[in-house]
Amino acid sequence: MERNFFDLLKNRWDQDFFVCVGLDIEYDKIPQHIRDRHTMKEEPWGAMLDFGKQIVDATHDYACAYKPNTAFYEAYGPKGMRTLFDLVAYIKERYPDIPIINDAKRGDIGNTNARYAAASFDELGVDAVTVQPYLGKEPLEPFLQRKEKGCIVLCRTSNPGAGEFQDMLVDGIPLWQRVAHNVRDSWNEHKNCGLVVGAPYPGEMKTIRDSVGDIPFLIPGVGAQGGNGINEVVRAGMDSNRQGMIINSSRSIIYASSDENFAERAREETQKLHNAINHSRTKT
Amino acid sequence: MERNFFDLLKNRWDQDFFVCVGLDIEYDKIPQHIRDRHTMKEEPWGAMLDFGKQIVDATHDYACAYKPNTAFYEAYGPKGMRTLFDLVAYIKERYPDIPIINDAKRGDIGNTNARYAAASFDELGVDAVTVQPYLGKEPLEPFLQRKEKGCIVLCRTSNPGAGEFQDMLVDGIPLWQRVAHNVRDSWNEHKNCGLVVGAPYPGEMKTIRDSVGDIPFLIPGVGAQGGNGINEVVRAGMDSNRQGMIINSSRSIIYASSDENFAERAREETQKLHNAINHSRTKT
Repeated sequence: MERNFFDLLKNRWDQDFFVCVGLDIEYDKIPQHIRDRHTMKEEPWGAMLDFGKQIVDATHDYACAYKPNTAFYEAYGPKGMRTLFDLVAYIKERYPDIPIINDAKRGDIGNTNARYAAASFDELGVDAVTVQPYLGKEPLEPFLQRKEKGCIVLCRTSNPGAGEFQDMLVDGIPLWQRVAHNVRDSWNEHKNCGLVVGAPYPGEMKTIRDSVGDIPFLIPGVGAQGGNGINEVVRAGMDSNRQGMIINSSRSIIYASSDENFAERAREETQKLHNAINHSRTKT
Repeated sequence: MERNFFDLLKNRWDQDFFVCVGLDIEYDKIPQHIRDRHTMKEEPWGAMLDFGKQIVDATHDYACAYKPNTAFYEAYGPKGMRTLFDLVAYIKERYPDIPIINDAKRGDIGNTNARYAAASFDELGVDAVTVQPYLGKEPLEPFLQRKEKGCIVLCRTSNPGAGEFQDMLVDGIPLWQRVAHNVRDSWNEHKNCGLVVGAPYPGEMKTIRDSVGDIPFLIPGVGAQGGNGINEVVRAGMDSNRQGMIINSSRSIIYASSDENFAERAREETQKLHNAINHSRTKT
């Protein structure tokens, strides 16, 4: 049976899994003992794949989703892309219940987005992709028409300078809210949209949740990006089923330790975030 | 000496070259006789590279710039990316005077954009990249700090639905104009920014040109995308030196013919656009 992002996601949520592990692998941050294990010929790719697999193996029974960011693989050229493909294939084979989000933040004209959709959904084979709103809905149809795949639209991003355009008021309403409304009212006809809403802005997150119903949120900015307390994030981000959240942590999990115990520490950090989220969910 | 996008560009403009050849190669659109020439083992990559090289060889003495769009290579996986790398290397070696723009439309948080900048500028080795404005200036610093490279910001895109957000009025001024103003006032401190301004909107283009001075425009939407008459585009887009334009055509050039004469026809289309632009430039 074909994988369906929303079925996979709902299944993870129903088991109380909300932590998305961001697989932003940088060679220089991989523990030395793993780098030493790989010959120069296969560097940096052998070490990246080895590291990624160990992170996945250590975190899979707490993970809601995995989210590689393409930038970290593209930075090593075609062989870096090969590593991403191998890592995605590994996750799908070993842990077929866990959805994979390609955090690619793509966005182009329609003719070109058709190729990006093919790249993410058909070649790489992920379940969802993050996309840019700036060109509007029309060119995103190649993503939106894939009903079984997630199309997660940047709404309120987690970076410090996010407000430069996103906070601009259009008829008294900030641009990020306009994006949320358009996704709700028009883009989401196949119920396959999500929204990227950064953890550092729980006030905005609450406003968005109140206006869009149960559209899933991908929430970056917890951990290394200095997000607010998880309690505020969960209170703001939960949907009507106390679910609806894909809460990402990348660096705080995968680089929790640079020693031999890195995988164990990654697991502990994942579990810690998992527990904090579920503690917050069950509080009134 | 290190390549400098703006020196290369100015040098092309001074020779009256303004046509950017968009290298958006789709396997299915490559002439059959080229596809037949390559063994199944190397398909589709052998045919794509062969086709791309022949297009470049046929158009180089009219080209202002080459602009591959990453989507068309990513769609074939890691080997597609290898094809892009090989094609860029070929252009740089054979035609070192012609700048290469990676039309990637990237945009993420700063930590991630550092890896995208490495991917485009250091690994792939192009001279400029297109970027998304939605996250603001702050995360684009890894691109903006590369003074010798071009950072070409989406401003008014060429797609039919571009206006959904871009036309929204912020204090009476459309968002696309806000982007142009912020690039002019703050992002362009190293004089290494450009703006993407679509040919189908010459009115907006004129407004942007009047307000940003001599910032280069990358102009898509001529030809297959149904842009307005080239005369209107040139009148609206020219800078104070009657230059300032990188006028892209992709499909109309590279798929001008699917027969044995495809390269010759690509050259003719490039020359035709070149002549039309220069005719318009010299009219009052």
